[in-house]
Amino acid sequence: MILFIEELYLKKNAHYAILDSVMNIYETRWEKLCLSMKAENISLLMFEDKECRRDSSIRHLTGHPSDALFFLNPEKGNLLAPWDVNLANQLAHADAIIPYNEFGREPVKALVKSASYFGLDGLWGRPRVEVPPSTPYPLFLQYAAALPNCEIICRNKGIHARESALRAVKDESEIRIYRRLAELTNELLDSIETNVRDGVLETEADVALFIEAQARKRGCEGSSFETLAAGSERSFGIHAFPSYTDALFAGKGLSILDFGLKYQGYASDVTMTFARDASSEQKELLDLVESAYNLALSHVRDYASVRDAAAAVDGLFASVGRILPHGLGHGLGLDVHEEPFINSRVDNYEILKTGMVFTIEPGLYDPRLGGCRLENDVILGPDGTEVLTKSRIVIL
Amino acid sequence: MILFIEELYLKKNAHYAILDSVMNIYETRWEKLCLSMKAENISLLMFEDKECRRDSSIRHLTGHPSDALFFLNPEKGNLLAPWDVNLANQLAHADAIIPYNEFGREPVKALVKSASYFGLDGLWGRPRVEVPPSTPYPLFLQYAAALPNCEIICRNKGIHARESALRAVKDESEIRIYRRLAELTNELLDSIETNVRDGVLETEADVALFIEAQARKRGCEGSSFETLAAGSERSFGIHAFPSYTDALFAGKGLSILDFGLKYQGYASDVTMTFARDASSEQKELLDLVESAYNLALSHVRDYASVRDAAAAVDGLFASVGRILPHGLGHGLGLDVHEEPFINSRVDNYEILKTGMVFTIEPGLYDPRLGGCRLENDVILGPDGTEVLTKSRIVIL
Repeated sequence: MILFIEELYLKKNAHYAILDSVMNIYETRWEKLCLSMKAENISLLMFEDKECRRDSSIRHLTGHPSDALFFLNPEKGNLLAPWDVNLANQLAHADAIIPYNEFGREPVKALVKSASYFGLDGLWGRPRVEVPPSTPYPLFLQYAAALPNCEIICRNKGIHARESALRAVKDESEIRIYRRLAELTNELLDSIETNVRDGVLETEADVALFIEAQARKRGCEGSSFETLAAGSERSFGIHAFPSYTDALFAGKGLSILDFGLKYQGYASDVTMTFARDASSEQKELLDLVESAYNLALSHVRDYASVRDAAAAVDGLFASVGRILPHGLGHGLGLDVHEEPFINSRVDNYEILKTGMVFTIEPGLYDPRLGGCRLENDVILGPDGTEVLTKSRIVIL
Repeated sequence: MILFIEELYLKKNAHYAILDSVMNIYETRWEKLCLSMKAENISLLMFEDKECRRDSSIRHLTGHPSDALFFLNPEKGNLLAPWDVNLANQLAHADAIIPYNEFGREPVKALVKSASYFGLDGLWGRPRVEVPPSTPYPLFLQYAAALPNCEIICRNKGIHARESALRAVKDESEIRIYRRLAELTNELLDSIETNVRDGVLETEADVALFIEAQARKRGCEGSSFETLAAGSERSFGIHAFPSYTDALFAGKGLSILDFGLKYQGYASDVTMTFARDASSEQKELLDLVESAYNLALSHVRDYASVRDAAAAVDGLFASVGRILPHGLGHGLGLDVHEEPFINSRVDNYEILKTGMVFTIEPGLYDPRLGGCRLENDVILGPDGTEVLTKSRIVIL
């Protein structure tokens, strides 16, 4: 029963009631992927975004922000199968939109029907079909059994990795979003500092809920991740659990606030440390983190290896017998953690490139003194490194 | 370099500074899994809980609430490899705790070392090692290459499915948690209704942030999922996007509030519909949902097929030309969506059993009239069905 698909295919572009310039963003992205597909003779590429296997690439490629499958064929275009078709009709850009329900919400059925839709049964040889690298082994076997005439490909360094690399380098429209997102984040940083100083925000929950409320008020989709507000009793943990409680925030000692906003899908991510009546040892810790932060920034430039900055910070901390227990930074985009991953692992060959947006976030955590982390969002622009956000260590 | 593991092994039980009765909960769970492993001659079972592949089974089996790997051997005990070892030392129950960092945070290294730790290299034949059914195909190949002398098993209906089935039937300690969680949820339902009636909570964000604040104040870990507050303009969507905004809530028409609390790891999940100045058509919709809810409850009992209740509701809605566009309900536990899944799919053979906790949540969504859903949490107790939570349709 493929008829309904053909019918929808005729409606191609019918939902494009949006500016051409917006359309072109997505078409450009499709074209880049299709070039890679052609180079490797891939006839069908599948993306999947669902509860247990999130993939923001579908939002990047179509604008659709929720559960869906997405199929690309280099010759005949693409097909979005969203769980919520009303939402897709409002927001998504695709050559065809077919409700996932029409495939019984079964990825195997959807893959088989898409292969047929794009005419793979009429091709010579064994057409190559690439499924997401997150595909579970049992599901991979089902795909292979359901499409015996196709070669099913599932690999970490295939076309999906190419899409991740494309996502890491932001285009003009994304950079515009990041400039606005940075403004929103910076306004919030200021207003948090004022309200903590004035005693309006007293507990971890006060601060976290203030952020969530302000995010929605300012037109964001919300926080980009669950806010982490750790008062001085528990700031020594990198990721405190639960992420915030009804306990005092910014009391005597070191408190950490790690949060981000989500604006038009894109994430910011900043960490502010509050120090009240800091001891000299605590001040040393703060100075060390601030030095590491500046040192890292001095190593961030076009064509630098991500390892350079991370190794410099490792060296600084090692010189005083301390260790950075987490990555120095990570890319930002539709996911709050994406490429490039900035750390000193020997097998990390990532190179920084113009257009990348990422965090720099050195931190030190001492069970006796508490924790300190300073995190800002950085863009590698054509004129060099620019720190977009203005988080800082606040001395109370 | 296995020395550090042996050293830690000697410390077995050293961190058990907790009540014996609490320990026994976990030991009982381990024993049940080990029985299944022995029956299928599985020598090593692996669980993985990480950002892109969440699995609350590790919390169920050890109490550890955060990123980790967990390995079980039916003869020699088990091993937890947590990302945050401080947190694990506070909260986790396991025969041995080894920081995931010691394995270079590499699942392949961790699996190989665990196989060695549990003496699999000394076994005759090809020991059977079962990895999670969510294991991506490329990772499965890496496991198989790294352990050529073992048979690597990855299947949907293996020991991990057995663990899911065990989780679906709550034990006494879990039922005690659910009784307290229901009280907390019910207090909040009452206070939301009062505050909406009094005009204290006006916008979608007001309601959502009130819930989050109350959750933390009442000692919960937070919301069990992002609160969905959809005013009458957008309640026709099953899952509105974004989940709440600064728009009016509970204005003229039908508004939906879907939220849950997370208490000691366990989730509640309720939906309240608010109707203000409802038209007669809207009232019909509300009555229909309420009838469906009562009809579903009448079909919920020990040893009933989950399809019975769902088919009854389907029939009722079909008689008036309407459709339930989502499942009728789902199990609750450490995940907000887990077994049993209550729907009328022909391949759903799930049977309800004493000890299960699940939602019943019929809903109807009409682009013109708006949406209505009524959802409560139900336990199948030894004396029959008991509705734990007290959500309702609120007429304003």
